[in-house]
Amino acid sequence: MEKIFVFGHKSPDTDSICSSIVMADLQRKTGEEDVIPCRLGEMNEETKYVLKHFQVEAPMLLEKVEEGQTVIMVDHNEFTQTVDGIENAKIITVVDHHRINNFKTAEPLFYYAQPVGCTATLLLELYTLNHVEIEPKMAGLMLSAIISDTLLLKSPTTTEKDKKAVEQLAKIANIDINTYGLEMLKAGTDLDKYTEEELIRLDAKKIEKEDVKYVIAQVNTVSIPDVLKRKAKIEQEINKEILSKGLSLFVFVITDIINSNSEAIVLGDRTDAISKTYEIKDNIAVMPGVVSRKKQILPLVENNI
Amino acid sequence: MEKIFVFGHKSPDTDSICSSIVMADLQRKTGEEDVIPCRLGEMNEETKYVLKHFQVEAPMLLEKVEEGQTVIMVDHNEFTQTVDGIENAKIITVVDHHRINNFKTAEPLFYYAQPVGCTATLLLELYTLNHVEIEPKMAGLMLSAIISDTLLLKSPTTTEKDKKAVEQLAKIANIDINTYGLEMLKAGTDLDKYTEEELIRLDAKKIEKEDVKYVIAQVNTVSIPDVLKRKAKIEQEINKEILSKGLSLFVFVITDIINSNSEAIVLGDRTDAISKTYEIKDNIAVMPGVVSRKKQILPLVENNI
Repeated sequence: MEKIFVFGHKSPDTDSICSSIVMADLQRKTGEEDVIPCRLGEMNEETKYVLKHFQVEAPMLLEKVEEGQTVIMVDHNEFTQTVDGIENAKIITVVDHHRINNFKTAEPLFYYAQPVGCTATLLLELYTLNHVEIEPKMAGLMLSAIISDTLLLKSPTTTEKDKKAVEQLAKIANIDINTYGLEMLKAGTDLDKYTEEELIRLDAKKIEKEDVKYVIAQVNTVSIPDVLKRKAKIEQEINKEILSKGLSLFVFVITDIINSNSEAIVLGDRTDAISKTYEIKDNIAVMPGVVSRKKQILPLVENNI
Repeated sequence: MEKIFVFGHKSPDTDSICSSIVMADLQRKTGEEDVIPCRLGEMNEETKYVLKHFQVEAPMLLEKVEEGQTVIMVDHNEFTQTVDGIENAKIITVVDHHRINNFKTAEPLFYYAQPVGCTATLLLELYTLNHVEIEPKMAGLMLSAIISDTLLLKSPTTTEKDKKAVEQLAKIANIDINTYGLEMLKAGTDLDKYTEEELIRLDAKKIEKEDVKYVIAQVNTVSIPDVLKRKAKIEQEINKEILSKGLSLFVFVITDIINSNSEAIVLGDRTDAISKTYEIKDNIAVMPGVVSRKKQILPLVENNI
């Protein structure tokens, strides 16, 4: 039987990793035998905490795909965020909750997207549609993905469907979501172990609009000042990245998960895309109430670039 | 309440027209009030037969959309095949069964696609998912769309889901599919009333790959020689179209719906995309067993251009 790789985006977050594992599980239970969950990069501390908690193995590291390789994409669709070689792969399925950007295939495919807070919320629907029973471990992974993407249902990306999914999954996984959720999110805020180079790549989305390339990266913390102690070195790394990748803009968003605020380090030729809305002082934009890259920062940049 | 336009592709076929009407019905029944089914061009004779048979009004003709207009696309996603102004519209939903090609939105959306024979097969699933009862008229329209797209379930694009959908819908609409289906298809083969200029645009898909623009048009008939009597004039119109639109290739596929064969008039600088597989003599390629543009002709051209 044909081997199928399932993966989320580069700089994988908890949704990308968990949804790959869960989607592979669902595929196997609906008849596909050789489905391999993969990751396109190092896992962050939050995700490691999740996999350890539910005693689930990490997905295989995938660096590129060969021509004609059959793949399933979860939690992303943009080619700038995916595995090398995607142009010549055979994409049979996408399950995602992002906007679609210059996605293309040669053949018709299964594509399921909804404007919800997390890919895992849609995977839960697919289990239901296919009448497949959900194991507690898989419920735990989906639950973790939703908590991660919605910052414990507090992000403006959160929908009724996500809330209902969390409720249903918490029962199956037998988890108290507030206790577990906060512990899990806090595990992801231990940024000390990363070099600045790693920090700016930890959860970085590269976007191209016409000829303008830019990156919006995001880290979670319980103390923004703690992260900003490393500002000089972070800026140095960002400037290196701007030069080597030919970027017009790099937005490094530091999100306080307790108080639901962000501050961003903004560098590049096109800082105007941010400064039209938020004052930038000493390369820093203070963004009260901002926690969602997708819903709050990306549209802002897109409209101004 | 916000007005929402629903439409299929330009050069609308029966699936594009019926799915617009049916999708509007489904949207209304799930809470959206002001949903307007639209068409992006003249309806063909087959579609007129269907609407007359089920006594359903024709959708409104839509020539372009204003900036910010909320829209739902059915039966297509490629911007080259859709309404003028789409780049600045707000696409909230797509239901489709084609490959995805350079589709993009600024925001997350509901996107539902599967590699099945017809959009209406997916709409039937959405009725079921939303627990909405299907009226006989709507069942008749969906049934007609599937019969049209799959040439009475004989095209290689036909899947098990399409077959099951037809069975279910025939019961609701109380229709004998073979009798009705053949009559409906035959109604679409009366090509005498079209000028050659109309004929080549009746069901034409314009495709761009990198900088190469090409068109694959298709007509159904019960007699290929009857259509080829007009070959000289058809070629004249195709050559005009090639010049005015800057096309590299125009493939005009004439499909015999009784015997499931096609012959194509092939013109342009890049006829090699066809001649690598089918011998072209006097601008004509004979294609035994070929009835599906999507599954049999498009991949061929895409691979060779």
